[in-house]
Amino acid sequence: MGYNITQKILLEHLVEGELKPGEEIAIKIDQTLTQDATGTMVYLQLEAMGISKVKTKKSVAYVDHNTLQVGFENADDHKFIATAAKKYGVYYSKAGNGICHQVHLERFAVPGQTLLGSDSHTPTAGGLGCLAIGAGGLDVAAAMAGYPYYLKMPRIVNVELRGKLKPWVTAKDVIFELLRRLTVKGGVGKIFEYTGEGVKTLSIPERATIANMGAELGATTSIFPSDDVTYEFLKAQGREKDFVRIEPDEDAQYDEKIVIDLSKLEPLVAMPHSPDNVHPISEVKGIKVDQVIIGSCTNSSFKDMALVAKILKGKTIHPDVSFAVVPGSRQVLMMMIQTGILSDIVSAGARILECACGPCIGMGQAPGSGAISVRTFNRNFKGRCGTPDAQVILASPAVAAITAVNGVLSDPRELGEMPEIAEPKQYYINDNMIIPPATDEKVEVFYGPNIKPIPVANKIGESIQGQVLIKVSDNISTDDIIPGTAKLLPLRSNIPALSEYCFVNIDKDFVKRAKAAGGGIIVAGENYGQGSSREHAALVPLYLGIKAVIAKSFARIHKDNLVNYGILPAIFENHDDYEKIEQEDVLLIENVKQLLKSGKGIVKNLTKQVEIPIYIDLTKRQVELLFEGGLLNYIKKKLERG
Amino acid sequence: MGYNITQKILLEHLVEGELKPGEEIAIKIDQTLTQDATGTMVYLQLEAMGISKVKTKKSVAYVDHNTLQVGFENADDHKFIATAAKKYGVYYSKAGNGICHQVHLERFAVPGQTLLGSDSHTPTAGGLGCLAIGAGGLDVAAAMAGYPYYLKMPRIVNVELRGKLKPWVTAKDVIFELLRRLTVKGGVGKIFEYTGEGVKTLSIPERATIANMGAELGATTSIFPSDDVTYEFLKAQGREKDFVRIEPDEDAQYDEKIVIDLSKLEPLVAMPHSPDNVHPISEVKGIKVDQVIIGSCTNSSFKDMALVAKILKGKTIHPDVSFAVVPGSRQVLMMMIQTGILSDIVSAGARILECACGPCIGMGQAPGSGAISVRTFNRNFKGRCGTPDAQVILASPAVAAITAVNGVLSDPRELGEMPEIAEPKQYYINDNMIIPPATDEKVEVFYGPNIKPIPVANKIGESIQGQVLIKVSDNISTDDIIPGTAKLLPLRSNIPALSEYCFVNIDKDFVKRAKAAGGGIIVAGENYGQGSSREHAALVPLYLGIKAVIAKSFARIHKDNLVNYGILPAIFENHDDYEKIEQEDVLLIENVKQLLKSGKGIVKNLTKQVEIPIYIDLTKRQVELLFEGGLLNYIKKKLERG
Repeated sequence: MGYNITQKILLEHLVEGELKPGEEIAIKIDQTLTQDATGTMVYLQLEAMGISKVKTKKSVAYVDHNTLQVGFENADDHKFIATAAKKYGVYYSKAGNGICHQVHLERFAVPGQTLLGSDSHTPTAGGLGCLAIGAGGLDVAAAMAGYPYYLKMPRIVNVELRGKLKPWVTAKDVIFELLRRLTVKGGVGKIFEYTGEGVKTLSIPERATIANMGAELGATTSIFPSDDVTYEFLKAQGREKDFVRIEPDEDAQYDEKIVIDLSKLEPLVAMPHSPDNVHPISEVKGIKVDQVIIGSCTNSSFKDMALVAKILKGKTIHPDVSFAVVPGSRQVLMMMIQTGILSDIVSAGARILECACGPCIGMGQAPGSGAISVRTFNRNFKGRCGTPDAQVILASPAVAAITAVNGVLSDPRELGEMPEIAEPKQYYINDNMIIPPATDEKVEVFYGPNIKPIPVANKIGESIQGQVLIKVSDNISTDDIIPGTAKLLPLRSNIPALSEYCFVNIDKDFVKRAKAAGGGIIVAGENYGQGSSREHAALVPLYLGIKAVIAKSFARIHKDNLVNYGILPAIFENHDDYEKIEQEDVLLIENVKQLLKSGKGIVKNLTKQVEIPIYIDLTKRQVELLFEGGLLNYIKKKLERG
Repeated sequence: MGYNITQKILLEHLVEGELKPGEEIAIKIDQTLTQDATGTMVYLQLEAMGISKVKTKKSVAYVDHNTLQVGFENADDHKFIATAAKKYGVYYSKAGNGICHQVHLERFAVPGQTLLGSDSHTPTAGGLGCLAIGAGGLDVAAAMAGYPYYLKMPRIVNVELRGKLKPWVTAKDVIFELLRRLTVKGGVGKIFEYTGEGVKTLSIPERATIANMGAELGATTSIFPSDDVTYEFLKAQGREKDFVRIEPDEDAQYDEKIVIDLSKLEPLVAMPHSPDNVHPISEVKGIKVDQVIIGSCTNSSFKDMALVAKILKGKTIHPDVSFAVVPGSRQVLMMMIQTGILSDIVSAGARILECACGPCIGMGQAPGSGAISVRTFNRNFKGRCGTPDAQVILASPAVAAITAVNGVLSDPRELGEMPEIAEPKQYYINDNMIIPPATDEKVEVFYGPNIKPIPVANKIGESIQGQVLIKVSDNISTDDIIPGTAKLLPLRSNIPALSEYCFVNIDKDFVKRAKAAGGGIIVAGENYGQGSSREHAALVPLYLGIKAVIAKSFARIHKDNLVNYGILPAIFENHDDYEKIEQEDVLLIENVKQLLKSGKGIVKNLTKQVEIPIYIDLTKRQVELLFEGGLLNYIKKKLERG
C-alpha cells in the first residue's frame, strides 16, 4: 500500500506510536520558529531546561509582532530574544526583516522536513511541502532541546484541486471555498493534503496562502506536494540544494476526500465576523468602505503586491479610504522597489507600513468607530482589529485593491483582462538582517526589567497537603484564571508581576491568600480551564505554589498544561463530593506515587474529617512528567543523563 | 532707514500696533496649518465660531501625529478633520502624505506670506522666506476666521552666516552651534533672521532644518531671505509662480547681531537630555548605541536621505542596532524609490516606517530600558521617546548613518571624501493625497463618539456670585489643573469626559463639588497656571462653570487662555487677603463692568462678611473679549456683523 505525503514525512520522523488517527504519536522536529510575542517565553523555557545549544537542524527567532514599540518593553524583549538566540544557536531575524512565515518560506523551510512554530500560522510552510505545525511555547522549547513533539495522529484529508483558476480568482478564494464548505471547526484533528492537476497551476506563494489559512479551519496543518514548481521557487531563492521531490504514491490512501474544481470558483470574501462567513463578491459588492489594508502572512508575497500594483497603476485611492500596504518581508519590499511596483502603489496614495504583522494582529491601523475595513488577512474576529464595533471583511489582494480605488466593495472582474504576473526567476537575496548564532564566544543574555525567569516545579512529593485556596464553579476559563487583557499582555514575560492578577475577576483576595499560605490546592467544577490555550494559566498557579487542582472535569489543553508545569490534575470520582470541600479546608493526598501509578486514590479533608475518592486521566508519558516535576525538569534530566 | 526681511513682511501684514519690541501688534495671517493632534480642537473651535468658510488664502489640515492608530479614536479624529476641512474650505493632507512642515514647505509655503500653525515647528517654512509662527489652537482657528494674530513685537536678531560648511558638516550643525551659544532660552521673544554670503550655500531644505530647530531656542520664529536658491526650489516644485524675492535692505537695522563662520564648524551632537547640551562629535564618539533613527520635520528631506544612502550603500547596519528611516513626505519617499536610494537604505538593513512624525513625538520605536538612541530629530527631552530611562542623542543624518553602521557614535569625517548631492531639478509632484475642500456641496461633519462640541462661555454678567470650589496654593501648574498623561490624551476632543479629571491629583472631590454647585470660583496663590500652555486648563474649568479665578498672580499664557475662554482672572490687591477666603465661602463681585473698565474693584466674601480689593491686568483688547464672552464669541459676533 502506498503512502500519501503526510504519511511519508511522518514515518521518516516517527519516534513513538503508530499512524492511526486518534493515537498519540511522537515525531522528531527538524526546524523551529518563534515570533517575539510568544518567543520570550520560549527562550525563558529553553533557558530553564539548562541546554547549551539547540538540537534542531535549524531554529529561527523572528521579531514581527510587537514592532510598534510604544514603551520600553518591546525593545527589551527584542534584545532578550536576540541575545538568547545568539547563545543557544538560533538564527535571529531583526525587526523589519519581515513576517516569520513569509521569511521562513523564502529562506528556511525545506520540503519533507518538520517545522514546529510558536504561532498558529506556522502551517504556511506547508506550501512547499514542509510539515509545519503551530504549537505552544513549551512544546517548541522542548523541540529545540531535542525532545520529540507529541500529538494525536490526525485524520488526513485529501483536497483534490481540478482545473485552473479563472481570471481574477486567486488562491485566497480556494481557501475561502473550503471555509465556506467546512466552517472554522471543520478541520479540527485533521491534516489537509492538496493534490491533483490544479496544484501545478499554483505558485509557491499561492500554495502558502492556502496552507496558511488552513489554520482557520482548525486544522493541525496543510501540506502541498514538493514538485517542479517547488524546485523553481527554491532555485529563485538560491536554495535549489534544499529541494526534495515529495509526492503521494499513486495508490495513496486518505481518511477523507474533498474535490474543488478551481475553474468553478469566483471571487469570494469573508464577511464579519468569521473567516467562514463566506460570500461571492457579486452578492455583497457596493458596500461603502473606510479602510483597505494589503498584507499579513496570508497575502503579502511579491506576486500579491505585483497584482495590486497593476490594478493601482495610474489610479488614485478613493479620498474617503485609508489605504495601507504592508510588505510581508524585506525581500518583498526590495523587489517592489526594484521592479517599480512600489512606485505605482505609493503614487496611488498608499500608506507604506513596516514589513511586519502590523494591523493583522491589531498592532495599529485600528479602523474608526463602526468603520468597514477590507483586509487581505486571515482573521476577522470581532474586535481583533482594535475597534470593537468595526466590521472587517477578508478579501483577496485583487478585491482589496479595486475596492480601495472605488471606495466600495468591488469585483475585480470589472477591470477586464487580468494582467499576467510571472513568479520571479530570481528573488532578491540578502540575509544581512538575519543574525547568525554565536560560534564559540560567550554571550550574556540581556534581561530587561520586565523579563523574569520562569518558575520551575519541584518533583511531585510522597504526599500533597495544603489549604483549599479557592473553590470555583463550572466552566472556569483560562481567562478567569489569568486575564489576557491589553493591560496584562506586557507582563507575559514577567510571571511574578502577572501572578498578581490570578483569579482577579473572581476573587480579589486569592493572591493574598495564596501568598500567605505559601501555596495550596484549587477545587473546581466541570470543564475547568476551558477557552484559550495559554500556558500562563498553569505557570501563574505554579508560581503561587499551587500543587494540585481537584475538579469534576478538565478542559483538555489546560490539563496538559498543568501536567507540563508539574501540577497534579485530579478528578472527583463522584461529582457530589465537590460539596464536601469548602474554601480554606486543609486537604491531604497521601501516596501520590501510588495514585499516579494506579490512577486511583483518596484525598482526605482534614478539616471536615472525610475521605474523598479521586482519579487521574493521564497518559503514561504524562505520569512520567509529573514524577519528574513537569516537562522542563523532565527534559533537563534527560539532558543531564546525556 | 531700510528694513530687514521680518519688518518688510510684518509691515505688509500689520493690522494694529507699531513694530517696537515688546509692544502688542496684530498681523494678518495668509495661511494656516494644523496637525491632527491639535487639529481636532482647532476645527471644533472654528465650528463654534459659526463661520461658513475660512478667510485665509490657504489653510491646510495635516494628519501626521496619531498615525499608529491603536484604538478607534485616531481614525475617528482623522475623519472628523477630513470632513470639517472639506466643509470649511481647508485642504486635507491624508495620513501617509507626510509631516506637515515638510509637505507645507514642498507644496504650499510662499515667500513673504504669513503662516500660523498649531504646531511649535511651524517656523520650518521660514526656510523659504515665509514668516511662520507656531501658536495655540484658538489663535489658529481665529486666524482661519479672518481675525488677526496678536503678539508682542519680538526683537529681531540678525544671524550672519559667513563662509561655507566643510565636508560632513551640515545644516544641523549650524543650529546646534546656535543652541550651544544661546541655550534653549536664548531665543525667547526673538525672531532670528539669517543673512550673509553663507546663506547662498544652503539649499532650501537645509535652511528649513535651521529654521525648524529655531523653535528649540524658544524663538518666535526664524527666517531666511527668498533668493535665487528659493526660486530654483520653487521651480523644481512646479511653483515658480509663488516666488517673490525678499532680501533685507542694505541699511537694514537689527536689535541684535550674531556671526557664525560656517567654515569653522565641525560635526556636533546634542547629548541627553536637552537640545542645547551640544558637544563636538570628536569629544563623545565611541559610545555604544542601541538604536538610530533618521527622520522628523528637522531632517527628512530628499537630500538628507540621499546622503544617508550614499553612506550606507553596500554596507550593513551593525547587528546590535535597530535602524529606522522615516521619510518626511510621500514626495521624499517617491524620490527615494525612483533614484534608487531607498534600495541602498533597505539593503543595508533599515526598518522603513510610514511618512509621519512617528518616533519623534514618541509614537512608536521607544528604545529599550536604559538604551542609547541617536536620532536626527529636534528634541531629546527625558522620556519624550517613550522610555523614561533611555538616552537620546540628537545628530545630523551623516553622523546618524555612520553610527548605525559602526554601532558606536561615530564621526562621518572618517569616511573620507563627502559625496556631492545636488538638489533635484525637478521634484516628484503628485497632490492626490491632498483632498481639496468642497466647492458647493453640503458636507456633513463626522463626529466619532469621542468628539464632543467645545463649551462656549456666556458674556460676562453685571455681577459674579459663586462658591469657592477650591482654594489652591502657589505655583499650581496647568498639569495640576488638568493632567496631560497618556491616559487623558485621547480625551482631548472630549471636554465633558476630560473634565472628570480636573484637579484630580489635588482634590478628588473637586469635580463633584463643582457639578453640585453648578459652577463657582477658584482661589489661588502665586503664579497660577504655570507650565504647559495647554488651553484645556481653561476649557475644562469653563465646562465646569468656573466664572472667575482670584489669585495672587497668574502665569502669562494661562491668564490669556482664561480670557480667551471668558473666565475673569482677578488679582488680590493685598496678598494677605488670600487668607480671608476659605473653600466653600460664597463670593460676590458686583459691578463687573466697572471692574473691567477701571481695572479695580471689590470682591465681597458673603460668608465671612469682609470686602477684599482686587484688580485686573489686561489689555484693552482682552477687556473687550471678556465683555463678549471670550474670543470665540467675539469672533462670532464680528462675523454676524459682517
